[in-house]
Amino acid sequence: MRNIKMVVEYDGSRYLGWQRQPNTERTIQGKLESVIQQMVGADVDVIGSGRTDAGVHAHGQVANFHGQTDMSAEQIHQYLNQYLPQDIAVLVVEEAPERFHARYNAKAKKYVYRIWNHWIPSAFERKYSLHLPEPLDVPAMEEASRLLVGTHDFLPFSSLRRSKKSTVRTISSVDFEQTGSMLEISIIGNGFLYNMVRILTGTLIEVGQGKQSPDCIPGIFGSGKRQEAGYTVPPHGLFLAEVYY
Amino acid sequence: MRNIKMVVEYDGSRYLGWQRQPNTERTIQGKLESVIQQMVGADVDVIGSGRTDAGVHAHGQVANFHGQTDMSAEQIHQYLNQYLPQDIAVLVVEEAPERFHARYNAKAKKYVYRIWNHWIPSAFERKYSLHLPEPLDVPAMEEASRLLVGTHDFLPFSSLRRSKKSTVRTISSVDFEQTGSMLEISIIGNGFLYNMVRILTGTLIEVGQGKQSPDCIPGIFGSGKRQEAGYTVPPHGLFLAEVYY
Repeated sequence: MRNIKMVVEYDGSRYLGWQRQPNTERTIQGKLESVIQQMVGADVDVIGSGRTDAGVHAHGQVANFHGQTDMSAEQIHQYLNQYLPQDIAVLVVEEAPERFHARYNAKAKKYVYRIWNHWIPSAFERKYSLHLPEPLDVPAMEEASRLLVGTHDFLPFSSLRRSKKSTVRTISSVDFEQTGSMLEISIIGNGFLYNMVRILTGTLIEVGQGKQSPDCIPGIFGSGKRQEAGYTVPPHGLFLAEVYY
Repeated sequence: MRNIKMVVEYDGSRYLGWQRQPNTERTIQGKLESVIQQMVGADVDVIGSGRTDAGVHAHGQVANFHGQTDMSAEQIHQYLNQYLPQDIAVLVVEEAPERFHARYNAKAKKYVYRIWNHWIPSAFERKYSLHLPEPLDVPAMEEASRLLVGTHDFLPFSSLRRSKKSTVRTISSVDFEQTGSMLEISIIGNGFLYNMVRILTGTLIEVGQGKQSPDCIPGIFGSGKRQEAGYTVPPHGLFLAEVYY
């Protein structure tokens, strides 16, 4: 059996998310599995680095599958892009060591949240960014973001009610990049709880809007309460940018 | 009566083109007129700098309308973006002199055609560029493009069978810009015949693919025949970028 690793880009607009679901074709994992099964003529499990929610996009999702085929990596690559829908593109196909596992071996991930921060909307960015017409106080957001970096219990920044598993994660960086009206917030961490990037971003936005103070972060960690953190921003501004191994 | 000038951006994917049509809502002009009529409470003609075909996009279409309203230009601007569909955005609203006419006063236009020139497709650019997997010979395309610049009878580069009106136009520049896998061809001219940008681009692509020689252009002008020129590229890579007055 070969172990094939892929880097996958997708426009999540039309999909119910990464994870396969019964009775629907509208998941990324489901689409990949159906094309790969047709290619190798056998059942296949595609293992992603992690799930992405309905409507979330990816520039660099990583996945692998085990299968038997005589095709070269390049032939597999061409086959996949030929038969996948146009809003899913396979960027890289390569042979991986037998034990490589896209989820277990992932050391860290980068997510990018995009905000169109201008009172005039954009006809082209509307599906790939959150439109916030009022100017944000970016220096205040950067100040707050520095208090997120490090190892913390991120339970209040998640949609989990509580968890038997550890909710301690490490965020290694939060970066801001402004290009014209587009503000991109990049967050790198060793793992993310359910909705964590979207709640972190919502909290930073509330700081940028003056609804929360830049030094609110330690109090939110201390409270452990979801309601102290900001709102959950919508999925269409969110991109899984890169997975590190 | 005031004369209001607008700069309009649109994602043409969902539309049948600029020009209003009976019994359908799916034109850009029709959408603008319906929102502006609701705003001023009277019938309104929106005059565009020119038509764009079904599926063609715009970053800088210019249009004007005559109407009576007490709203300021900024209030009109906000109203339009509030009520227009999200794939049409009004970028500028300003008071124009009474005699300003978006079509008659246009001196030149810039169109941009975008080509995704890599064997790996892009999930995000698929609706906004033509995917050509084989590498193009861009220097040959640039050589051919220099023979297009100037004043010529562009009839063979149009879908017009023949015309009583003059088909002589002046192209002032053709520029190529490569950014990663994206090749953008920008054409500025004082006027464009039906499908002219798409046939000029198709001809340049055939030169880039070695199907026509870079010095084929004078022969096509000389023949006056549509079939000597290249194919009509699809609309989804084409943008009306700017209108000059």
